[in-house]
Amino acid sequence: MIMVGFLQAQNCTTLASAWRHPDARSDFTSAAYYQAIGRVLEAGKFQLAFFDDRLAMPDIYGGNPAEVVANGVRVVKIDPVVTLMAMGFGTRHLGLGSTASTTYYEPFDVARRFQTVDHMLGGRAAWNVVTSVNDAEARNMGREVHMDHDLRYDRADEFMEIVLGCWDGWEDGALVVDKQTGLFADPDKVHRLEYKGRFLSSSGTFTVPRSPQGHPVIIQAGSSARGKTFAARWAETVFVGHEDLAAGKRQYADLKAEVARLGRDPDMMSINTIAYPVVAETRAEAEDKMALIDSLYKEVDGLSLLSEALNFDFKAKGLDEAFTAEELQGMSGMQAMRDRVMRHTGHNPTVRDFLEITRRGRPREAVVGSGKDVADRLEQWFVERACDGFVVAGTHMPGSFEDFVRFVVPELQRRGLYRTEYTGATLRENLGLPVPARGAWRPPA
Amino acid sequence: MIMVGFLQAQNCTTLASAWRHPDARSDFTSAAYYQAIGRVLEAGKFQLAFFDDRLAMPDIYGGNPAEVVANGVRVVKIDPVVTLMAMGFGTRHLGLGSTASTTYYEPFDVARRFQTVDHMLGGRAAWNVVTSVNDAEARNMGREVHMDHDLRYDRADEFMEIVLGCWDGWEDGALVVDKQTGLFADPDKVHRLEYKGRFLSSSGTFTVPRSPQGHPVIIQAGSSARGKTFAARWAETVFVGHEDLAAGKRQYADLKAEVARLGRDPDMMSINTIAYPVVAETRAEAEDKMALIDSLYKEVDGLSLLSEALNFDFKAKGLDEAFTAEELQGMSGMQAMRDRVMRHTGHNPTVRDFLEITRRGRPREAVVGSGKDVADRLEQWFVERACDGFVVAGTHMPGSFEDFVRFVVPELQRRGLYRTEYTGATLRENLGLPVPARGAWRPPA
Repeated sequence: MIMVGFLQAQNCTTLASAWRHPDARSDFTSAAYYQAIGRVLEAGKFQLAFFDDRLAMPDIYGGNPAEVVANGVRVVKIDPVVTLMAMGFGTRHLGLGSTASTTYYEPFDVARRFQTVDHMLGGRAAWNVVTSVNDAEARNMGREVHMDHDLRYDRADEFMEIVLGCWDGWEDGALVVDKQTGLFADPDKVHRLEYKGRFLSSSGTFTVPRSPQGHPVIIQAGSSARGKTFAARWAETVFVGHEDLAAGKRQYADLKAEVARLGRDPDMMSINTIAYPVVAETRAEAEDKMALIDSLYKEVDGLSLLSEALNFDFKAKGLDEAFTAEELQGMSGMQAMRDRVMRHTGHNPTVRDFLEITRRGRPREAVVGSGKDVADRLEQWFVERACDGFVVAGTHMPGSFEDFVRFVVPELQRRGLYRTEYTGATLRENLGLPVPARGAWRPPA
Repeated sequence: MIMVGFLQAQNCTTLASAWRHPDARSDFTSAAYYQAIGRVLEAGKFQLAFFDDRLAMPDIYGGNPAEVVANGVRVVKIDPVVTLMAMGFGTRHLGLGSTASTTYYEPFDVARRFQTVDHMLGGRAAWNVVTSVNDAEARNMGREVHMDHDLRYDRADEFMEIVLGCWDGWEDGALVVDKQTGLFADPDKVHRLEYKGRFLSSSGTFTVPRSPQGHPVIIQAGSSARGKTFAARWAETVFVGHEDLAAGKRQYADLKAEVARLGRDPDMMSINTIAYPVVAETRAEAEDKMALIDSLYKEVDGLSLLSEALNFDFKAKGLDEAFTAEELQGMSGMQAMRDRVMRHTGHNPTVRDFLEITRRGRPREAVVGSGKDVADRLEQWFVERACDGFVVAGTHMPGSFEDFVRFVVPELQRRGLYRTEYTGATLRENLGLPVPARGAWRPPA
């Protein structure tokens, strides 16, 4: 069973209210904070932790930052790769991933940055591939509006081809470094990339030799139809959210089938479901914890996060006002989220419908209970093949992970479902993924 | 006296032959290598170390990478910010800077990345602002050709205005983080940026609060006329190379005068001269070391590095063939270097003239001698106001810095020219620079 920590280089967890929790640490811009979290995850033998990211605060809401700043709704977003490095030097085994957008960066730069992380951390790096979702990010990054949903993924496909082309630049054994003969590297094993696509181009010789993992592990979490096709083509580890067990099993089977259809080995991609555990010594105590967490939510959290995710100012509508068909069509952010809400209501949803169905800003499908209760749920999902593991999201830091490691991990270990020690030296080894061969990512002819 | 270590996240030092030195470590893609260097510099009480960078290997030479790869001419270039973080967690006091190009990155991204480094390293960050010089970089980064020299600096001016605008986004004391009242930050102290320039635009609210230093220290090293104007406007620490003491004194006075002319306090900018010490117990031993270092040079080093710096394939000309006026005019890289060669020869230079005058790939103006010899030279430059300190470049790693710290540092300390302990908690404190006030970078109206 794979266990992944869902991290933010931010003032919040996936819950915008996280900073308000009485037990939350407030030193979220310090290395000490991230290193403390890393130590907890490593004590719990998590294979991987990864940092979420977005290139803007959710100030689409109301058209200015005042409300989100005052309420601390995910307004602090520091650089996740730099933060990852701080966590990397506070841990020894934990794999560490960061998000980087294919919409605004250059692929040569991303390839170099993550390959360097893999070298510096001795083979513990992963890259979470995303496309950026809203105009606030576009404007910070010097564009007027962000790209359309499907075009973003077309660009992302080209981005991957360049990044993997860079990573294929140096073969294993290319480095010789023989001071006697003066031969530094074997020129037959170092290859130029020449790439010209519709959106992106890059030509040159990559400047980073192969890293301990060959290259970093590739993570993806797209949940739209186009996003899933993208994941099936590129991802080695996928993060998904499911509504219930039946849907989880169906989507698991579908995604694995899609991977096979594209000519890849389905076992070379793990599918991990996001879990929101609230756990304590007893179920009653866990329910008390949950009640406290629920009480920290403010409506501005939900409204500003919906505005961010759907690229639409939710302050422009009354709470019970239905969206027009045109407004719904124009929501250009996370379309899978919009579609889910429309499916649920069966009619044009209101702002309140969006708040209630998405529960944006609140714990969604929290698993509340004792260590045994939570382990039961995880075991069921895992055994019934709805997932290969879990992405554990915390309600506050580092307390959530401490509870999980204290109450759930030992229970899973007793059941023989979960490792008691790190078995490999690299993240790939701990995930059971092979070192990729050069060109293995190219689709079969 | 300021002391800065000149670093590369590469297989070479400023000398392309560095990897061939018998005492050079070959683990230049590992954290251990950079942390070992950091410890040496910290033992020598260096205030700052900074990483050079270029976004391509010098494979303009001959139009393909085979020769530079075989000979190891600066072909490995890993991400310097990621590498800096590895060094940061192996040191406690040393200030750490990295180069980042204003030509290919987005200013919001650079502002966020370096401000995060400053948070994670407790106020030890610096950014070396450069414009990129050649087509190989352009092509890796998805462009056909690189920008013209002066246009690059015009773009860089806009880049600085956005970066500093981002860094002004959060005032001191903006963060409240009061869980009781629910007030996260004072919205009156968090400001949106709205910037629209000729080359760059950015609008949004920055997502990183003020850091321990206010913002990272700004380094610049432009040596063309346009580059110096840029440095006088923006830099807090400047790195320069001088031909001799008289030229050094003149340029020091000129640059300080230019800073004052722009309405800035000249004491708020330090000027540091690049020094290439080769030092040993005795002068005779140092000369033996120098002979060994000279023997490591290969002509391909000089030719490929000239090709890179001047954006012209030097393999296209015979060694003793003079460049045409048109070819010289078309060299669009480091124009100060080209101009220096033309001034020296008085006629259209040949390839050999470029090799001999620039000594590209070989130690330039190395200071060879005992600790006392080297200290004499540094003292003279410092006391006669040709500089405020030195950027020490090494011939091989980490041996060069070990020698400097062993033989020169104690001699400077005995003379009362150099600190025996770190006096401040941040890089600014160690450099004697104030925490910048918001908007202090704007020219007086």
